Amino acid sequence: MSRCRVTFLPDNRTLEVEEGLDLLRVAAMAGIELKSSCGGEGTCGRCAVAIKEGRALVGQGNLSRKNREAGYVLACRTLVQGDLVVEIPAASRMAEHQVLLEKIEKKEILAEVEKDPLEKYGLEPFSRKLTVELTEPTIYENASDLSRLVLGLQALTGTEGITISLAAARTLPEVLRQGNWQVTVTMVEQDGRGEIIQVEPGRATKPSYGLAIDIGTTTVVVLLVDTSTGLTIDRAGTHNKQFRFGDDVITRIIYATEESGGQQELQRAVLDTINELVDRLLVKNGLTPGDVHSVVTAGNTTMAHLFLGIWPGYIRLEPYIPAAAVFPVVRGKDLGLHVHPEALVLTYPAVASYVGGDIVSGALVVDIANSEELTLFIDIGTNGEMVLGNKDLLVSAACSAGPAFEGGGISCGMRATPGAIQRLEIDPRLEVKLDTIGGEKPMGICGTGLVDSLAKLREAGVIDRTGKFQPGLDGARRREGNDGPEFVLSWSQESGIGKDVVITEADVKNVIRAKGAIFAGIRSLLQTVEMPVEAIERIYIAGGFGNFLNLRDTVEIGMLPDVPAERYSFVGNTSVKGARVALLSQRAFREALELARKMTYLELSLGTTFMDEFTLALFLPHTDLELFPSVQK
Amino acid sequence: MSRCRVTFLPDNRTLEVEEGLDLLRVAAMAGIELKSSCGGEGTCGRCAVAIKEGRALVGQGNLSRKNREAGYVLACRTLVQGDLVVEIPAASRMAEHQVLLEKIEKKEILAEVEKDPLEKYGLEPFSRKLTVELTEPTIYENASDLSRLVLGLQALTGTEGITISLAAARTLPEVLRQGNWQVTVTMVEQDGRGEIIQVEPGRATKPSYGLAIDIGTTTVVVLLVDTSTGLTIDRAGTHNKQFRFGDDVITRIIYATEESGGQQELQRAVLDTINELVDRLLVKNGLTPGDVHSVVTAGNTTMAHLFLGIWPGYIRLEPYIPAAAVFPVVRGKDLGLHVHPEALVLTYPAVASYVGGDIVSGALVVDIANSEELTLFIDIGTNGEMVLGNKDLLVSAACSAGPAFEGGGISCGMRATPGAIQRLEIDPRLEVKLDTIGGEKPMGICGTGLVDSLAKLREAGVIDRTGKFQPGLDGARRREGNDGPEFVLSWSQESGIGKDVVITEADVKNVIRAKGAIFAGIRSLLQTVEMPVEAIERIYIAGGFGNFLNLRDTVEIGMLPDVPAERYSFVGNTSVKGARVALLSQRAFREALELARKMTYLELSLGTTFMDEFTLALFLPHTDLELFPSVQK
Repeated sequence: MSRCRVTFLPDNRTLEVEEGLDLLRVAAMAGIELKSSCGGEGTCGRCAVAIKEGRALVGQGNLSRKNREAGYVLACRTLVQGDLVVEIPAASRMAEHQVLLEKIEKKEILAEVEKDPLEKYGLEPFSRKLTVELTEPTIYENASDLSRLVLGLQALTGTEGITISLAAARTLPEVLRQGNWQVTVTMVEQDGRGEIIQVEPGRATKPSYGLAIDIGTTTVVVLLVDTSTGLTIDRAGTHNKQFRFGDDVITRIIYATEESGGQQELQRAVLDTINELVDRLLVKNGLTPGDVHSVVTAGNTTMAHLFLGIWPGYIRLEPYIPAAAVFPVVRGKDLGLHVHPEALVLTYPAVASYVGGDIVSGALVVDIANSEELTLFIDIGTNGEMVLGNKDLLVSAACSAGPAFEGGGISCGMRATPGAIQRLEIDPRLEVKLDTIGGEKPMGICGTGLVDSLAKLREAGVIDRTGKFQPGLDGARRREGNDGPEFVLSWSQESGIGKDVVITEADVKNVIRAKGAIFAGIRSLLQTVEMPVEAIERIYIAGGFGNFLNLRDTVEIGMLPDVPAERYSFVGNTSVKGARVALLSQRAFREALELARKMTYLELSLGTTFMDEFTLALFLPHTDLELFPSVQK
Repeated sequence: MSRCRVTFLPDNRTLEVEEGLDLLRVAAMAGIELKSSCGGEGTCGRCAVAIKEGRALVGQGNLSRKNREAGYVLACRTLVQGDLVVEIPAASRMAEHQVLLEKIEKKEILAEVEKDPLEKYGLEPFSRKLTVELTEPTIYENASDLSRLVLGLQALTGTEGITISLAAARTLPEVLRQGNWQVTVTMVEQDGRGEIIQVEPGRATKPSYGLAIDIGTTTVVVLLVDTSTGLTIDRAGTHNKQFRFGDDVITRIIYATEESGGQQELQRAVLDTINELVDRLLVKNGLTPGDVHSVVTAGNTTMAHLFLGIWPGYIRLEPYIPAAAVFPVVRGKDLGLHVHPEALVLTYPAVASYVGGDIVSGALVVDIANSEELTLFIDIGTNGEMVLGNKDLLVSAACSAGPAFEGGGISCGMRATPGAIQRLEIDPRLEVKLDTIGGEKPMGICGTGLVDSLAKLREAGVIDRTGKFQPGLDGARRREGNDGPEFVLSWSQESGIGKDVVITEADVKNVIRAKGAIFAGIRSLLQTVEMPVEAIERIYIAGGFGNFLNLRDTVEIGMLPDVPAERYSFVGNTSVKGARVALLSQRAFREALELARKMTYLELSLGTTFMDEFTLALFLPHTDLELFPSVQK
């Protein structure tokens, strides 16, 4: 194989690679992340790039005619054949999530449920530092260094049977004498057993730090926590680098299981994502990896498998069996995390293949297992995962909403990044007022924008209750496009992408199917507990998407139950919040294990209930208008 | 630094090394082990080699005139300066221990205490294999693979809270399906907690194997054990490669703590020793490292520290504090042992710096802690370690006998390897009949030969009760040598070393000091329990040296108590026997921990008791003849 030099513009980044690699992968190797919902299958059409110089083998793929005419090729279908210069248009590039994250954080502070769930459990972290003063040995009192230390710790903590890591034992004699028999011990604890993993001479100046990590399919968020006070010192987030292997968990499982080395690549990607965030937090706060002694992650079942490097293949094959739902507790060194080698790394337990640790984490945060009220907890993303119940009973389910709410499968869909239309108004003359994320020029429509679009198009009479574009409204914005009827939200001259931003009838139908799946899921859960919609006394909406939702819109299109608004709470990223609580309270983690066992999993593909409910929900708001009394009015 | 080629003859082994290295080290790098009692300090004079070609920098050292005249240099004092050809005489080369070991084993089978101590504890090994049949999951019964397996194991074993190693979890989904839901699990257990470390499809053909290892200062012995039956499948032994860093633990601690990288070299040496034995056993028995899942080692406190890579420096400095007496349980991978990466590696607990896990192991084997009779357990080597007591009280001590019994500091001393004089008779005309190990030509005298020599020289009237050579006996064998009076045991023409094998007056005094230390230690222990010598109802002699001892000799020279011979038992290598018992019984290992705590350590350097007793014991058999009534007769 000969080596080829590939230069990416405008970054002007050059690297040497083997002939035959595709440009999507080469870009990733150069640290440039391209959009790719399909995982490099050539079907999503998002990784368009332009070859400026050199020879490449361009394969077939789903590239829009416009892009093709503009000279673009799909990076994932284009193989390096010699030295190349490749230009990457802004539209093909992954946006930096930082901005979004800060917004989410701001919103979270304002969210209703802001009582720290840790208060319930009390501070009992998985790692802590303890300073002990020991008496110096003599020839008459000649216990070993380790016995002396263990007895001292036992007196201080009441913990029996404390052990020591080999690495810490190796340094013990020198450290004890250096500290003149006063030392600070870092201890990790698990099931009432303590293990010394570090010994420092004298009184340590730094506490033991921990990381609470939400491993989302799309976004990874890391909190740096002082385990001695429970305070979150800093936070960082970015998109999950697994993105280039596909948008959703199914695409990623396929990549992991069908490409040679795929599973390793996916694990590497998420570990790199986490390590970059950790490095950023450590540098910013003057810390080193050795200062971090405990980690709790929460993520969906597939993310947990990929993070730990456990084979995820059977998650997507009937009968949908995960390799594990309770995961091995491992050490930092086992995964190559940028933390202390002996740091405990705990993974939130899952319920089933499609109700994962992120949902258990959220359920713990909203304390649904101790609620007197019938409560619905729901996290809306590609999958709508939900838990319904109270202190007596808990039932959970996942319905596939498809990628619509994350901008997938929508002609001008995009993620909730700067330039995404998130709110709009349509006046009777069909004139449109837009609100975009970051106030930037419109580049596409994100999930919240789509929900709002449906509500507003319906109000304006552009679409009917089935989502069909109404005749007799033809005008400048309501027009026939290449793919049938469409509505122009932003004209090319005002948009940030040099073309019109539209929503098509097919898009509308897609969103109706997505919202229908969510509502059908909720109704299916209600049927198992034999309760009507109005019996739900409390609804918690979790996740980044939830944060931006206009509640009225979601009820109007029939996605969420039509109950009084005061029963709703937006609770933000409960996955990372629950990870933090478990990091700081061993009792909370034990309760999470219990909770995961208690949450009965309802497989929606069984029986006809879900499909029946889904069919009924393919109307705006619903076939049965009585379910949406406030909309009926 | 320039590179030099060094060739060793007669091996004809060549390697390239950096200029400036000493030949002792270079020989070790070439896999050739030279004798070296002093650890390369230039004082023992055993590593003599001849430079046949090339340039070397020859330093000063304790080389006999004869050797110097014969053109030899000390390998440890000779630095490589260019390409070299070096010849290694047979006398400077470490002997292969295999033969000795086989002899020991043979003798052990004949030993008195041959009831398997395991019978008391029952088989409850640290690693075992379990075959489980699981029901196939369905969409209705969709527990994760791991939950399914853990529940199946729980039903089979009653063990709750079974966990899994990350590596085993990674393979679990494929193995379960490959085995069509029948799998064999390898589980390691500790404190009632089980951990799955391996999963194989179907019913495994091989059991879980374990290793019982005696890490002696001189010799390392490994037993390969089938943990499912408790049977010892095979055994292997060889000298501890740490030999080249010095004969005894003190020299090795000095090397470990004062040479840069010394501790690592010593750890490497003992791990290499073990791994070579393990490889030999595995190959011979058609096994692989992955078949071995548990390891228990027993060795003295210094050996345990060096094996685990724990700083041993304070063991030799007052107040003689070991870093640990109870050692961390580690995994095969932590040390690079040639076993399963997740194999449990347990180290026998020690009592103090000079009463180690080998003694605790022996005490467990002879069951001293449950004895009704006042019992003495004694292991004689460079140190004489002893435990005295019964079910009510246990007291232990170590006295430094010096290297005499291992051939150190004796003009023609050698280890108990082929050619060593082990028995002799001296007739009234001072004619000598010799018995050597392996029936080979006499090359020197080993410990048992020295004990016998003293007894026989005293009987023949060659020496008096103080060890002084008597005047008026001059003849061919009794003569004045370069270092004073000496007695010729073997003439050069009959010996295997081309010179006379002699025992000098200085040698005799050395042996008297060594035996005196042992007896003084025993008397010191007796004083703490306020008992006379004759109250000892049982004496167990452990160790390879013990095996060859002529009991009558030892009593006659006043080394061991003059009690009826039937109270004595030679129990062989109790260190490895106890390691085997603990390997096969978790309860036995727990009892060993308890035993180590119970064995009060008597520091002989405190007070005057030991020194007083030592002075009294510097006679043959003793100053107080009443202590040796049978000798007095």
